[in-house]
Amino acid sequence: MITAKEIANICGVSPSTVSNILNGKPNVSEETRQKVWQVVRETGYQPNYFAANMRKRSTRTIGIVAEDLGQFSTTPILESAMAYCDENDYRTIIMNLRLYDKWKDTWYDDEEKVRQSLVPVLNELQSIKVDGVIYIAGHGRVIHCLPQDFPLPTMIAYAISDNDRMPSVILDDEQGGYNMTNYLLGLGHKKIAVIAGVKDNMHTQERMKGCRKALNEAGLSLQDQDVFFGDWERDSGNQGAQKFCNGDYSAIWCMNDLMAAGVYDFARQKKIEIGKDITVIGYDNRQVAGYLYPGLTTSDLPLKEIGIQSAQILIGMLEKKSFPDPKHKLIKVGSKMVLRNSAVKMK
Amino acid sequence: MITAKEIANICGVSPSTVSNILNGKPNVSEETRQKVWQVVRETGYQPNYFAANMRKRSTRTIGIVAEDLGQFSTTPILESAMAYCDENDYRTIIMNLRLYDKWKDTWYDDEEKVRQSLVPVLNELQSIKVDGVIYIAGHGRVIHCLPQDFPLPTMIAYAISDNDRMPSVILDDEQGGYNMTNYLLGLGHKKIAVIAGVKDNMHTQERMKGCRKALNEAGLSLQDQDVFFGDWERDSGNQGAQKFCNGDYSAIWCMNDLMAAGVYDFARQKKIEIGKDITVIGYDNRQVAGYLYPGLTTSDLPLKEIGIQSAQILIGMLEKKSFPDPKHKLIKVGSKMVLRNSAVKMK
Repeated sequence: MITAKEIANICGVSPSTVSNILNGKPNVSEETRQKVWQVVRETGYQPNYFAANMRKRSTRTIGIVAEDLGQFSTTPILESAMAYCDENDYRTIIMNLRLYDKWKDTWYDDEEKVRQSLVPVLNELQSIKVDGVIYIAGHGRVIHCLPQDFPLPTMIAYAISDNDRMPSVILDDEQGGYNMTNYLLGLGHKKIAVIAGVKDNMHTQERMKGCRKALNEAGLSLQDQDVFFGDWERDSGNQGAQKFCNGDYSAIWCMNDLMAAGVYDFARQKKIEIGKDITVIGYDNRQVAGYLYPGLTTSDLPLKEIGIQSAQILIGMLEKKSFPDPKHKLIKVGSKMVLRNSAVKMK
Repeated sequence: MITAKEIANICGVSPSTVSNILNGKPNVSEETRQKVWQVVRETGYQPNYFAANMRKRSTRTIGIVAEDLGQFSTTPILESAMAYCDENDYRTIIMNLRLYDKWKDTWYDDEEKVRQSLVPVLNELQSIKVDGVIYIAGHGRVIHCLPQDFPLPTMIAYAISDNDRMPSVILDDEQGGYNMTNYLLGLGHKKIAVIAGVKDNMHTQERMKGCRKALNEAGLSLQDQDVFFGDWERDSGNQGAQKFCNGDYSAIWCMNDLMAAGVYDFARQKKIEIGKDITVIGYDNRQVAGYLYPGLTTSDLPLKEIGIQSAQILIGMLEKKSFPDPKHKLIKVGSKMVLRNSAVKMK
């Protein structure tokens, strides 16, 4: 097996520079950093992070990094992860990147922006000497912003890690789309329209996959004209409803509750009765779902479960001093339907 | 002026014990701690916290302690405080006591419970060497849980401090109650009912005070039978509506939006049209207020302003190395009305 010293020789730098780079320390030129990491990747060198961590005393403190505490999905994940940590005698320290608050949705395709906020936070957590990190994403995607060489055991919640050493726990969006569609099929609906989220979003794509699967199993299919891509906001649901509330469809599945509320707005204006003239169902089980009239049938996100499992896996890594098998590095958690009064059986 | 050494002589302990007690260090018996603090209070001794803090290097890090990040009011305060800290080149570390998540509402009259969660967190913040602390309460009240001897400059947001060294920024609930009532009076309503929050709650009492003031100025008054005390939850609004939707009242002011939603539930069942047959207004401007039909006229809480001012005052203390004049230690921030469609002019 290749050693750190050999890596240093190949790169023409000192072994301590290699060690600094592998341990994410600053004050190394970007050029050298990239060169070392390239050789590390090419040679398949595995730095022994746990050996390095075992040398330091455990603080029994876990750092939780939230992309934005203002996201509705974040606090339930965070509080249930904290509860699990508490029960297992680990303290928690929270860092908030405030990405939505700072940049609305302009940071999605710009992980460099994320890195600007993230790197000082990760340095701070290392200087506090937390034992490990739970990173809670604001929306599902593959995460590239965490340094490949981040030396602490880390767990990603609500998004997918691009790093074999960092397991992830995410929503099972495909199962969710499958269940919601099957529910409509079970009520006898055959003409189903979908008001989807942003087109290239991971949640949208996975939920769509599940929806198509259920339709195909029922001998039906989803045509382009049956789908309207919204932007997750209320108004875009209203726009979608303009397309679908024309008598051609008996049911509309909205990929979140806020867009479903937009369908309610349109239906009210046109005197179409939801839960009677047409079936509308949502996704997320946001608080508003229970305050719409009629109450919106939707899918409750397993946020608490994501938080618990994230903490459980991280603490497992810390106590066993090993990373989970890469085959088990992605855990998907299923949603549960919440039945209210917006869906009706086909006559 | 009396010195720490003289305090030590009076108490029969060593000067370092006095210093440990004044600086909130553990490992001192409760009996000794109480004795020293009693003498400190009796003699009017003023420990010089800033002198002590000046000896240590500033970390330009502020600790934010939230009673519960799950409270709807907490994240907007926290994120705007963080934004102000960011702009002024202070980092932030967040600690979440998770009081509601752990104990629902059973901790309100039991600051000992709060202290159990709080003391380790304050110790941790001291060991991280934050420069100061912003404590964000989950609901308004006078806060007794912070140790009188806590040595770091501290600011209380959303509740009132019982400590002259810790300024507070809170909602101006009296002004809010006054404005909401005046709005109804301006529409010509004279028979106004109030669905109030929990009776001994500070928000309830202050909003009520403002409401009575506006009515009195208009030559009207609020009788016992015009008030129903709910519990801030939707169902209690429904109960209040049973009492008030009898033709005797033309307007109902609910002290929060969730109870107003309960009035909507009752009205729908009785085919009473809100915004036409009766006026209903709320408080808080929760997200649901805009999803009810008709949209609920309500009062937007100045949460961002509370966050900004809290950070501003704390950073002011840190940079001027002095506590604000105790006369200015309580700042009240006013709310703004949000007009939707649930209120109507008297014909």
